[in-house]
Amino acid sequence: MDVKILPIIMCGGSGTRVWPESRESLPKQFIPLLGVRSTFQATLENLDESLFEAPIVISNQDYRFLVSEQVKETGRTARVVLEPVRRDSAAAVAVGTELAVEIAPDTIVAIFAADHIVRDRAAFLAACREAAAAAAQGYIVTLGIKPTQPATGYGYIRTGAPVLAGSTVLKAEAFVEKPDAETAARYVAEGYLWNAGNFFFRADVMQEELRHFTPLVQAAAAEALAKARKDLDFLLLDKEAFSRAPKISIDYAVMEHTEKAAVVPADIGWSDVGTWAAVYELSEHDADGNSVRGNGIVLDASNVHIRSDEHLTTVVGVDNVIVVTTQDAVLVLDRAHGDKVKQLVDRLKAENRREALEHKRSYRPWGYYQSVDNGPRYQVKRIVVKPGARLSLQKHFHRAEHWIVVRGTAEVTRNNEVIQVHENESIYLPIGAVHRLANPGRIDLELIEVQTGSYLGEDDIVRIEDVYNRV
Amino acid sequence: MDVKILPIIMCGGSGTRVWPESRESLPKQFIPLLGVRSTFQATLENLDESLFEAPIVISNQDYRFLVSEQVKETGRTARVVLEPVRRDSAAAVAVGTELAVEIAPDTIVAIFAADHIVRDRAAFLAACREAAAAAAQGYIVTLGIKPTQPATGYGYIRTGAPVLAGSTVLKAEAFVEKPDAETAARYVAEGYLWNAGNFFFRADVMQEELRHFTPLVQAAAAEALAKARKDLDFLLLDKEAFSRAPKISIDYAVMEHTEKAAVVPADIGWSDVGTWAAVYELSEHDADGNSVRGNGIVLDASNVHIRSDEHLTTVVGVDNVIVVTTQDAVLVLDRAHGDKVKQLVDRLKAENRREALEHKRSYRPWGYYQSVDNGPRYQVKRIVVKPGARLSLQKHFHRAEHWIVVRGTAEVTRNNEVIQVHENESIYLPIGAVHRLANPGRIDLELIEVQTGSYLGEDDIVRIEDVYNRV
Repeated sequence: MDVKILPIIMCGGSGTRVWPESRESLPKQFIPLLGVRSTFQATLENLDESLFEAPIVISNQDYRFLVSEQVKETGRTARVVLEPVRRDSAAAVAVGTELAVEIAPDTIVAIFAADHIVRDRAAFLAACREAAAAAAQGYIVTLGIKPTQPATGYGYIRTGAPVLAGSTVLKAEAFVEKPDAETAARYVAEGYLWNAGNFFFRADVMQEELRHFTPLVQAAAAEALAKARKDLDFLLLDKEAFSRAPKISIDYAVMEHTEKAAVVPADIGWSDVGTWAAVYELSEHDADGNSVRGNGIVLDASNVHIRSDEHLTTVVGVDNVIVVTTQDAVLVLDRAHGDKVKQLVDRLKAENRREALEHKRSYRPWGYYQSVDNGPRYQVKRIVVKPGARLSLQKHFHRAEHWIVVRGTAEVTRNNEVIQVHENESIYLPIGAVHRLANPGRIDLELIEVQTGSYLGEDDIVRIEDVYNRV
Repeated sequence: MDVKILPIIMCGGSGTRVWPESRESLPKQFIPLLGVRSTFQATLENLDESLFEAPIVISNQDYRFLVSEQVKETGRTARVVLEPVRRDSAAAVAVGTELAVEIAPDTIVAIFAADHIVRDRAAFLAACREAAAAAAQGYIVTLGIKPTQPATGYGYIRTGAPVLAGSTVLKAEAFVEKPDAETAARYVAEGYLWNAGNFFFRADVMQEELRHFTPLVQAAAAEALAKARKDLDFLLLDKEAFSRAPKISIDYAVMEHTEKAAVVPADIGWSDVGTWAAVYELSEHDADGNSVRGNGIVLDASNVHIRSDEHLTTVVGVDNVIVVTTQDAVLVLDRAHGDKVKQLVDRLKAENRREALEHKRSYRPWGYYQSVDNGPRYQVKRIVVKPGARLSLQKHFHRAEHWIVVRGTAEVTRNNEVIQVHENESIYLPIGAVHRLANPGRIDLELIEVQTGSYLGEDDIVRIEDVYNRV
């Protein structure tokens, strides 16, 4: 194949079924559910550079620094497009389509989800080649996954005849909803494939279908892109225009209606890792079916999955249970009830529980901070600043801050002074002092911040100047 | 009754079956397993002052400050005797007996465990009166608990005829070991009682039985007491002498042999709260049998017990499970496997896991400290000092310390200075500086300590002077 595929990775979701690791502020696609890389990173790494162009990543603006940091870690490059509000997949596909048309109308585009995994990379790349070839001929092609069990958690594709005599690419006769158990069994028996939510198409073909079947989405996406503004390395879609796109999935908007749908049956070790039960299935097990990631012990139990980075997590005598421990929350889940976690998170959100949305550690473009202790009038944080990074120039109305440097060197601006603070030195920032923290060194700067005051909310911050445009 | 009973509370155990709350450094009897008071405190509070003298508490020297603090919280007074090494119950009973004989040979003594609970106080006090009356006549009397189910976790007592015609006090014909299920059912059918490990006796009677049946224990206890030294408010038994006492329980040493054993059948709402399953049974439940203490949520599950002071702990779809979350550890336990926790703790000890022995928070005579964060060359602690308390005058070879006062006022001795450090002020203690921390104020002093250095172990401390005699 001479022309490479332009991959577009949809990276804006906020999957709640793998809470407490996945949260609004650090959703599923950015978490190393399996192995050491996130599913987003694994998706990037599966895109062989001999077959694919550098990808376009479409994400929510809240995740912009997570996206760029994770792309950087893989050593890849990507264009990052940011959605200012959440819309469904049709709008994202429409934005990607417009970008591809700008490059060339016959660009072959592939849409991938950032939170699925594919374990057989060679088979995946082979299927991509087939799908791209059919896309070049005007089809909108999806990789249909050969079912390994009659799953009720996926949509299915009913396949038809080959698009050309002798081709392995089949007509996609219908995209059908998640079935009940009985219907699923029938689908599997009749050779239906799982709908994995990826699509290959020629940009001009999809643009035409979008215009035809969902013109409001297409128009909103095109305008949001035309009015987009560059922000650092990101392209931020115009909020007013993008908000006009109806919330609809690409399946509903186009795939269920188009005559051009085709499917490549694919056996590529795919999973949407949609629940902890799926993560357990994909993890390595010992002879008793137990799988421990991190600090865990299982005694007299089988088919147990423990995940805990820090706290010692123990299971005694309970079979078929999944236990996930994070800094501030514990989930004990029956393997058969994996999909109920969403219900739990909905309840937490209804109760305004912070644990539904945020982790104790918050990632920022300059590094991260983590709350480690707090009391009625104080809060203690660990702050880590990357080499060369600097926080905003800021002040607080209600809190004073003590900083003790425990690693590296800090360059602290305090009103009119600039002070180097070294390991084992401290500095005091009174209420109202205009200050800035920077790491001028070659290694991470770590410091302990002790805040004291009558109000310690994150929103007591006046940003006077910010290299990350957060003023 | 004219003469009051002298209660002796055995408070030296290190129960492991309710890990992770119970640990070597803070064992079961000091924990509020039910309600807001520990079982030790509940035991103290059940001793009506119209019937009982101020108690003698026999504990391990490691727990001396816990004992005095918890006694103080109840508003009671107690003499505290400290064992320098762990021996079994016969040695403790022998020490208590010698102390009682010193008061008067016919003192009526009652031995109680610090880690059991009694929910029917009126019935308990009535049974104590009966037992004391029989003890005054020369019997060694125990309260035998009427079984509520054929438990296999308790020893049983086979009862005989009344000690006097018409008395409700029965001869105790045999103390028998924990039975298997079948034997337990037979015991219950035949009217056996549970052995709850409490004893009422005249001091001279028990002294005689000890001399007769277990002379080595009696001699070691008497000598350990004769050579004991006062240490602050404590009486510390002589280590060399006390170590010579064989490790044997009072049941094996005396009760199984004496002709003087008697029993008062008692229906007093007793439990040894020996496992988490027992704690669950005694807790209040909702309509689904769920019982949540602290920060927990149960979704689609029944007969669940959650305990968590801080971390949000959730159970989804798993019935009959007990989940205990502490600062650094999580236990997920099948209700039917309560007694396996001991096995787990044995394994943790074999693996030299800190979590088997210590909590993140360590109680000291002056207050407590709690590790809140640590890294390769630093550690952050929250330190709370009670009003009027002072730490030892000390220095460290390997670490410097930064203290930031977040509540109250600190009086800091640093080499030749004495400095008042107020809320929102900080002070630096370089490596090697001789220093002392005291709270001269009327409210708790809270400070955040940031330690930096190449070695941060608790044993890098040279105590130069200590009001708590820990030099």
